[in-house]
Amino acid sequence: MEMKEYEGGQQVRWRERVCAGVGEVAHAVCVQSRRKKRNVEEKKRKEKGKMRKKGREKSKLDPHFCATSFLFTEYQYVGIFMVAFAVLIFLFLGSVEGFSTKPQACTYDSTKMCKPALATAAFSTISFLLGAITSVVSGFLGMKIATYANARTTLEARKGVGKAFIVAFRSGAVMGFLLAANGLLVLYITINLFKLYYGNDWEGLFEAITGYGLGGSSMALFGRVGGGIYTKAADVGADLVGKVERNIPEDDPRNPAVIADNVGDNVGDIAGMGSDLFGSSIGILVCLLTTLFATDFFEVKTVKEIEPALKKQLIISTILMTVGIAFVSWVGLPSSFTIFNFGVQKDVKNWQVYIWQLFLCVAVGLWAGLIIGFVTEYYTSNAYSPVQDVADSCRTGAATNVIFGLALGYKSCIIPIFAIAISIFVSFSFAAMYGIAVAALGMLSTIATGMSHRIRERTDALDAAGNTTAAIGKGFAIGSAALVSLALFGAFVSRAAISSVDVLTPKVFIGLLVGAMLPYWFSAMTMKSVGSAALKMVEEVRRQFNTIPGLMEGTTKPDYATCVKISTDASIKEMIPPGALVMLTPLIVGIFFGVETLSGVLAGFSSLVFSMCTKRILTAEPKYYFMAGASEHARTLGPKGSDAHKAAVIGDTVGDPLKDTSGPSLNILIKLMAVESLVFAPFFAAHGGLLFKIF
Amino acid sequence: MEMKEYEGGQQVRWRERVCAGVGEVAHAVCVQSRRKKRNVEEKKRKEKGKMRKKGREKSKLDPHFCATSFLFTEYQYVGIFMVAFAVLIFLFLGSVEGFSTKPQACTYDSTKMCKPALATAAFSTISFLLGAITSVVSGFLGMKIATYANARTTLEARKGVGKAFIVAFRSGAVMGFLLAANGLLVLYITINLFKLYYGNDWEGLFEAITGYGLGGSSMALFGRVGGGIYTKAADVGADLVGKVERNIPEDDPRNPAVIADNVGDNVGDIAGMGSDLFGSSIGILVCLLTTLFATDFFEVKTVKEIEPALKKQLIISTILMTVGIAFVSWVGLPSSFTIFNFGVQKDVKNWQVYIWQLFLCVAVGLWAGLIIGFVTEYYTSNAYSPVQDVADSCRTGAATNVIFGLALGYKSCIIPIFAIAISIFVSFSFAAMYGIAVAALGMLSTIATGMSHRIRERTDALDAAGNTTAAIGKGFAIGSAALVSLALFGAFVSRAAISSVDVLTPKVFIGLLVGAMLPYWFSAMTMKSVGSAALKMVEEVRRQFNTIPGLMEGTTKPDYATCVKISTDASIKEMIPPGALVMLTPLIVGIFFGVETLSGVLAGFSSLVFSMCTKRILTAEPKYYFMAGASEHARTLGPKGSDAHKAAVIGDTVGDPLKDTSGPSLNILIKLMAVESLVFAPFFAAHGGLLFKIF
Repeated sequence: MEMKEYEGGQQVRWRERVCAGVGEVAHAVCVQSRRKKRNVEEKKRKEKGKMRKKGREKSKLDPHFCATSFLFTEYQYVGIFMVAFAVLIFLFLGSVEGFSTKPQACTYDSTKMCKPALATAAFSTISFLLGAITSVVSGFLGMKIATYANARTTLEARKGVGKAFIVAFRSGAVMGFLLAANGLLVLYITINLFKLYYGNDWEGLFEAITGYGLGGSSMALFGRVGGGIYTKAADVGADLVGKVERNIPEDDPRNPAVIADNVGDNVGDIAGMGSDLFGSSIGILVCLLTTLFATDFFEVKTVKEIEPALKKQLIISTILMTVGIAFVSWVGLPSSFTIFNFGVQKDVKNWQVYIWQLFLCVAVGLWAGLIIGFVTEYYTSNAYSPVQDVADSCRTGAATNVIFGLALGYKSCIIPIFAIAISIFVSFSFAAMYGIAVAALGMLSTIATGMSHRIRERTDALDAAGNTTAAIGKGFAIGSAALVSLALFGAFVSRAAISSVDVLTPKVFIGLLVGAMLPYWFSAMTMKSVGSAALKMVEEVRRQFNTIPGLMEGTTKPDYATCVKISTDASIKEMIPPGALVMLTPLIVGIFFGVETLSGVLAGFSSLVFSMCTKRILTAEPKYYFMAGASEHARTLGPKGSDAHKAAVIGDTVGDPLKDTSGPSLNILIKLMAVESLVFAPFFAAHGGLLFKIF
Repeated sequence: MEMKEYEGGQQVRWRERVCAGVGEVAHAVCVQSRRKKRNVEEKKRKEKGKMRKKGREKSKLDPHFCATSFLFTEYQYVGIFMVAFAVLIFLFLGSVEGFSTKPQACTYDSTKMCKPALATAAFSTISFLLGAITSVVSGFLGMKIATYANARTTLEARKGVGKAFIVAFRSGAVMGFLLAANGLLVLYITINLFKLYYGNDWEGLFEAITGYGLGGSSMALFGRVGGGIYTKAADVGADLVGKVERNIPEDDPRNPAVIADNVGDNVGDIAGMGSDLFGSSIGILVCLLTTLFATDFFEVKTVKEIEPALKKQLIISTILMTVGIAFVSWVGLPSSFTIFNFGVQKDVKNWQVYIWQLFLCVAVGLWAGLIIGFVTEYYTSNAYSPVQDVADSCRTGAATNVIFGLALGYKSCIIPIFAIAISIFVSFSFAAMYGIAVAALGMLSTIATGMSHRIRERTDALDAAGNTTAAIGKGFAIGSAALVSLALFGAFVSRAAISSVDVLTPKVFIGLLVGAMLPYWFSAMTMKSVGSAALKMVEEVRRQFNTIPGLMEGTTKPDYATCVKISTDASIKEMIPPGALVMLTPLIVGIFFGVETLSGVLAGFSSLVFSMCTKRILTAEPKYYFMAGASEHARTLGPKGSDAHKAAVIGDTVGDPLKDTSGPSLNILIKLMAVESLVFAPFFAAHGGLLFKIF
């Protein structure tokens, strides 16, 4: 039982993934469905014959085919990196006991004998590769399913709001469960096979299995970053020239970047997320229940009913879940515990009190999640004053819009950070790092409910609502990622046998400094990449509009292939440096500066990532506020195409890479760095800190 | 001698101020001189008669008079806040020993008797008020001197580059020295008066004197924030409507916001900085020497000679200074030391080795400063590719410009942070917190030289160069502020009798979280303030252009007074919340959560502020790159007034509040929070952590 803590961390991580993942799939699916729906509406409005011709033209270069071939190219490059990294894992972990094949004393219980470090190195490498491969397979699978689900949703969308919602939501859920089950199945088989060798050596088994998480997270990172650069380059390029300069609608086939944009949707939102998605058993159950709850209990018929109904549902289900968890803690938890905390075993005698403490940890996470959800909605929904203020600032141009959007983004983090801080404090006080893992679990329960919030995407048929729910989802995801990584951080500290991480020692402090800088460095890299790719795309699209005669009139076909190539080349080329930065930092710090500095880096990084929720920059909302034009106030700001609307589009373009490329990746980043440190902890503890050993 | 550490911290802080201050004055003076010079050139180009008429019109509302009356209003409001705060200081510090008037055992040496806490509370309050008043007086003085120096420089500028440079540089230096001497004199008198009472009780004396620093820093903060909001609101308002929409030159008297803009220059750059400026004896000497060095040894005759000459000078003087400090350490330092480190006295026997270690601390700070200077110049000078890339991105509009600028801003911090981390590690390893204070001293020596860099402002007669040097100055200032605050942080930890700041305890970790969020919160507040004020300003300026007939033709006078009023009201109203946030956070955290959480907040805050150098966002540079139009590349981007140029102006407007309002204030913020924690440390240690005591 002494591995309770790791188990908690693992469980929570898987669970978080499936929940966040399902949400993301649902969102990604619906972004496409909304887009297509908008196209459908546009088509109705315009001449039917002309449109049919354009539709035919568009299908000549199939986005799905492009996406698949892009992914193949991407994984080829990443594959080389992963093989090299697998070799590193084997060499580093094998060298812990000097490649000895003899059994050794266990780290935590020196009276027992554990399997040799060399065997654990080999098994870690295998599970790392398995994790990576499962991740890739999930990515491809996810894309395939999403494409079909997408088509069905579009079909249903013509029949009405309700039907489309149910189809899209359920197909998203099915896909999420399938992928999660895939990941879980492989994990389950791996654990059982490894157990044949390890037997009673839980320490070695868990060490080896951590590699699976590292493999999965690494692929997810590359998928996210590569896909993010691809999709944003295409998106920014297509929007800036098409919508702002040429004043043609989104996804118009006359726009040369339109195919690249569609491909980007496939590779960015779906495949990247699919890679990050594999499972948890309890997690699946919760998600399933919530799905039933969402689709069967609260069937929504008109658009206006949605908002208050969903809020009520969120509160009711949080209360229900609190009661449910109280019941589960009473009935389901074992009658005695061994909590393993920083190398010191602690037998819990008074288990009834302890169970209630654990229940409080879950509850605090649950309610913190609810608060984060409400606050995020307040700051991102255009029903409230913050977004309206930003929209107002568009009157005076793009500059004031960006300033207001940034300020609002900063502000929207304040209450969530307090909520996270309180839940960390309460749960840590009750049950140390295990309590934090349990609180993360609680927060994820709310995500599952928050997911049902995504209904709005389908029904509103407006990007604005979709964006809000996506922002809420990301808020949860960052909150829970922070808690999960903190639990992993605790596991690392325990495994590296560090007794305290004292900020006032220079080793830790310089780690803190560098850790707090890393997210900026990473963002700088990805933003620069998106920027340069978008620059090329804009110039290419402009060139085509200027040099190809008959393009604007729709009589000539644009050169889609060049645009696709620009996005592909840019993302393959630009994905490697940020990926390498994240993968190599823990290694370099651990080898040269040792575990204390590395724990400083992790602490600095996690403390900052919380604040990075500011990346959910809110400049996109006002654009949708304009487009909706629903209120008197929105209409006074001016119609689509006005100067104020153009300012809103520029703000949206600035916010996009901040929100979609850097933001979600940071999410993966924090977990990746923590799990990587955990995998290499024995090596760093044995051979790390070279620099300090030399001087 | 046991207070060595505080002394180091104090000394360094004063010194840093005078040096940074002199630089800022020089910059502020020259911004005005450049502006006036540009006006002069414009005047020559245009009709003489018409211009003379406009000049007369402009003088009807004197910016200097407006600035003075604004400062009076501002200080009235701040005064109330300061008096309330003084009462708090007295009550809190007095309550440490229950308002007892009996002598008590000293904290650090319990065999000695120290003066009662009540007396120290009273003296701390007095020195707090003295610090605040001295700061206000310095602010007014600074503004007066700058106004006169300004006029003389403008006069000399007509005679030629060389003359103007020497006059501006020397008058800036004279002002800096005068203000520094003013601050020093008051401090010197205060210390000696207090000594009459305290006698041998160094502990009480230093505790009481810390209040002086707190008073000065608090006023500086309000001055900076208030002035920053004032000047940026006016600047953004004037630029957006005037330059972008109406296409009239900067500082054109037809622009209704022009007077408010000029007033802003006075209150923002000069008075705010003047408040933050008071002295150090060795610091003055160094600055004096460097001034001689700059003006007499390297006389610059043409614009082209400047850049390489200055670089050489920076390197040469760093080498010279390294040698000089080595000499001083050999000759000047006492033959025995008592280092006081975290409550443990450490007698240094082998003083020769120790002196060389101290010398290494200074040297590492010195060279880290040099590196920061060079890196910052590389990223901010339009002679190198980073700025040119950003300028290039203007081709595709404001959005890509802002994305590139942000990415570049993030990137420009990476090497400086490593430089700071290395110097912290080396100096801490050699001499703990005292070593860090000494390294800060070393870094400041480079600032003094870096200051001579400001020559370029005068000679280039271009905002671009001025901006670069200002950015370098800010880079130094942030670097040294970080080191200084770290030393103060060490002093706080020692005084609050905390043995370690372990990140893995929940008390510290939640502090870290909140600390890392505070800069964002503060920035959100100030940016929102600037945004709303600018919004009002833009609408007012537009209204005047639209409704006042004959304004564009120059036949009617605009309503300057309304614009001045908008800026004044906005800054008075909006200055209080961010100021209160910073002043109250240490108090609230200390009282309710105790010293451990507070040290977490300080650690989180300092680790982040290093990364906040990204606030030196670089979107402003491309604008100047266009304006300069010096290279073939710059000319291909398009002339002034082109779409690309407009995009650059929008980018500049976004960057401005980030760079000038939030950025420099964070600088003061970090020192203020550290010194405030230090002042209240005995109170928090005695009565803090209420929440944890209750639960």
